[in-house]
Amino acid sequence: MPRFNSIAGQRVQRIEALSDGVFSIAMTLLVFNMKDPVSGMVISDGKLLAALYDTLPTLLTYFLSFMTLGIFWTGQSTQFHYIQKYDRNLSWISLFFLMFVSILPFTTGILSNHITNRLSIGIYWLNILALGTLLYSHWHYAYKHHCVNFPENNGPVVNSALQNRVLTAQSLYTIAAALCFINTYVSIIAIILIQLNYALGLFNPKLSKL
Amino acid sequence: MPRFNSIAGQRVQRIEALSDGVFSIAMTLLVFNMKDPVSGMVISDGKLLAALYDTLPTLLTYFLSFMTLGIFWTGQSTQFHYIQKYDRNLSWISLFFLMFVSILPFTTGILSNHITNRLSIGIYWLNILALGTLLYSHWHYAYKHHCVNFPENNGPVVNSALQNRVLTAQSLYTIAAALCFINTYVSIIAIILIQLNYALGLFNPKLSKL
Amino acid sequence: MPRFNSIAGQRVQRIEALSDGVFSIAMTLLVFNMKDPVSGMVISDGKLLAALYDTLPTLLTYFLSFMTLGIFWTGQSTQFHYIQKYDRNLSWISLFFLMFVSILPFTTGILSNHITNRLSIGIYWLNILALGTLLYSHWHYAYKHHCVNFPENNGPVVNSALQNRVLTAQSLYTIAAALCFINTYVSIIAIILIQLNYALGLFNPKLSKL
Amino acid sequence: MPRFNSIAGQRVQRIEALSDGVFSIAMTLLVFNMKDPVSGMVISDGKLLAALYDTLPTLLTYFLSFMTLGIFWTGQSTQFHYIQKYDRNLSWISLFFLMFVSILPFTTGILSNHITNRLSIGIYWLNILALGTLLYSHWHYAYKHHCVNFPENNGPVVNSALQNRVLTAQSLYTIAAALCFINTYVSIIAIILIQLNYALGLFNPKLSKL
Repeated sequence: MPRFNSIAGQRVQRIEALSDGVFSIAMTLLVFNMKDPVSGMVISDGKLLAALYDTLPTLLTYFLSFMTLGIFWTGQSTQFHYIQKYDRNLSWISLFFLMFVSILPFTTGILSNHITNRLSIGIYWLNILALGTLLYSHWHYAYKHHCVNFPENNGPVVNSALQNRVLTAQSLYTIAAALCFINTYVSIIAIILIQLNYALGLFNPKLSKL
Repeated sequence: MPRFNSIAGQRVQRIEALSDGVFSIAMTLLVFNMKDPVSGMVISDGKLLAALYDTLPTLLTYFLSFMTLGIFWTGQSTQFHYIQKYDRNLSWISLFFLMFVSILPFTTGILSNHITNRLSIGIYWLNILALGTLLYSHWHYAYKHHCVNFPENNGPVVNSALQNRVLTAQSLYTIAAALCFINTYVSIIAIILIQLNYALGLFNPKLSKL
Repeated sequence: MPRFNSIAGQRVQRIEALSDGVFSIAMTLLVFNMKDPVSGMVISDGKLLAALYDTLPTLLTYFLSFMTLGIFWTGQSTQFHYIQKYDRNLSWISLFFLMFVSILPFTTGILSNHITNRLSIGIYWLNILALGTLLYSHWHYAYKHHCVNFPENNGPVVNSALQNRVLTAQSLYTIAAALCFINTYVSIIAIILIQLNYALGLFNPKLSKL
Repeated sequence: MPRFNSIAGQRVQRIEALSDGVFSIAMTLLVFNMKDPVSGMVISDGKLLAALYDTLPTLLTYFLSFMTLGIFWTGQSTQFHYIQKYDRNLSWISLFFLMFVSILPFTTGILSNHITNRLSIGIYWLNILALGTLLYSHWHYAYKHHCVNFPENNGPVVNSALQNRVLTAQSLYTIAAALCFINTYVSIIAIILIQLNYALGLFNPKLSKL
């Protein structure tokens, strides 16, 4: 039934469109955590610079969360390369995934306001963990229920690569988050380094092709 | 005239794109009702946790409204599987539907600020009722004016299933909303349980395939 | 050159995607003018109702602006049914058009805060006028430079209908705006009635098919 | 392998969808820097006009940034006409590009609040520089790694035109930004004039066809 496939394909397209919408809005809303530190007064360049300097923690968390969203967007996008069919269970896994995407500006705001609190790191890490768990479930369900298609007949390789990727990344994030018991800045920098590694594809040539 | 169909198809695509846009923004804007309870002060993890604990009602309504949007997005998305033609009346039904989607962050804000007021539940229920009525009208009009197409020749079955689904859901929401005369939290929890039932497809195997 | 057409088609698709994005965000951001009148205090249902009653002007302008955006979205969408080619001039007409779409939440905010001031109506009317002028120019340019295609060979009819529609609507808006010299509410209600007429397609059967 | 091409094509489509999302939201969020100068009080038309007059710097930076976003959207959109394949490096160049798109409402806010400070111009110019650098890298990488396709066999011409365009524009922006040492308004007006030149395609007939 080619007809049914095209309907199913359309279904995939809409969840992708909704995802692109939620991701792009969450990415742009992150900037709302950054506020002009001096509003309304005419001040010298020096004082403005000093005031902006105080917003560096916010800039750091902005960069952190943009990277987080970029990585999960890439991850979800990669899965959709192989997904050909969609059903309502996948739909709802995606919707819950998007729920944790849209809440990220909030947990980022908590983190940037309380950057020296371990609790903020913990909450942020829970957000990343939820995203990872749902992304993993999304692929696991799609693979198990034959909603995927591998044009190059490399199903098992792609499957284990995609699963390992989420598991490895989540383990690294957990270690990085645990570094908050030393210092919260160390923890944040460690998460950013892990993200940069994935973004720049440094230490994982095989997975980086996905 | 295949040519006209492709134009009509394009028309459907644009209203779908606009819908995905409005839904994804409304979903993401819900988070604006959640604010960092302590801004700017360095406090202990314990005090931060206590402050965050007070935001639980807001978190509850965030979850509630994300589910509401997810359910109506799925409902509209399902209708579009079968809709092949579009005219300006359908366009305007969709636009009024989107008007009540975009107002949901406002009614959610009222609800989360006044979670113990029955009036808040009433206003929220009116919002859901408007969404349900317009979603029902959208399908009713499309079916009656032959704007739909059933690739598996199951028109009457799909039609009654889609109509019953909205009617059943709206009846359940009305009962749940009426529970506010006992306690508003009971009412909200009841709505969330109904939503989880639809999301997880627990007690409605036949409809859950739509 | 079918190849070039597909590239040009893609160009049209992207400006449509950007338009759908800007329209859907502007529609959703309108709700930001509506704020919970009582924040943080536990009050009775009666007092909450009274407080909400005071937000009626805001609700009125929300409805007004959602209709405005819906009408211009429909207008632009109708033009794109016939547009097959796109060039950078059309791109920039569209971008300036979207500039006035995205500024509408601001002029709506002015109007809802100062609903009894004629100046607010004047500014709002200027916004509608700019939208109308750019929508007219968009079509005029596309028609004159042969960027359009009429699958039913009804070019001149469609052309004059689309042009007349903008001109008639703008004339009616101008008259309605001028009613602010009697009373600003009369003026707003008149604009809403004109919009409802276009939305419901009451008094313009010929144009309503577009 | 036509199959692989279609997958790669889909990948391009998603980064385009995400870009359209981020651009449209950033464009619309710019308006958040514009606030009603008088909130809540009933005042005369004259006083409202005077108050609005004070928001002119904000309106100027709104116009400035909308033009900036329009120009970079057009630039990126033009590149995608020729890009046929996509890989993760291009993905991440685009994501970093979008990071600087989404931060523009923040740097615009700094500029509009401190329009007489040279530092604000400097920060804004850095934002434009980052956008230009990433747009240039995006094309450079795509061309060098054969991710592009020229249906009219005019690869070298298009390549040098696209590269020169970014280089020329960035040089002009740098000169305009340097004018802030005379006066910051002169600098802003100069940037807007450069943008209007590109938007209206006045002095660059050859490039304006791109």
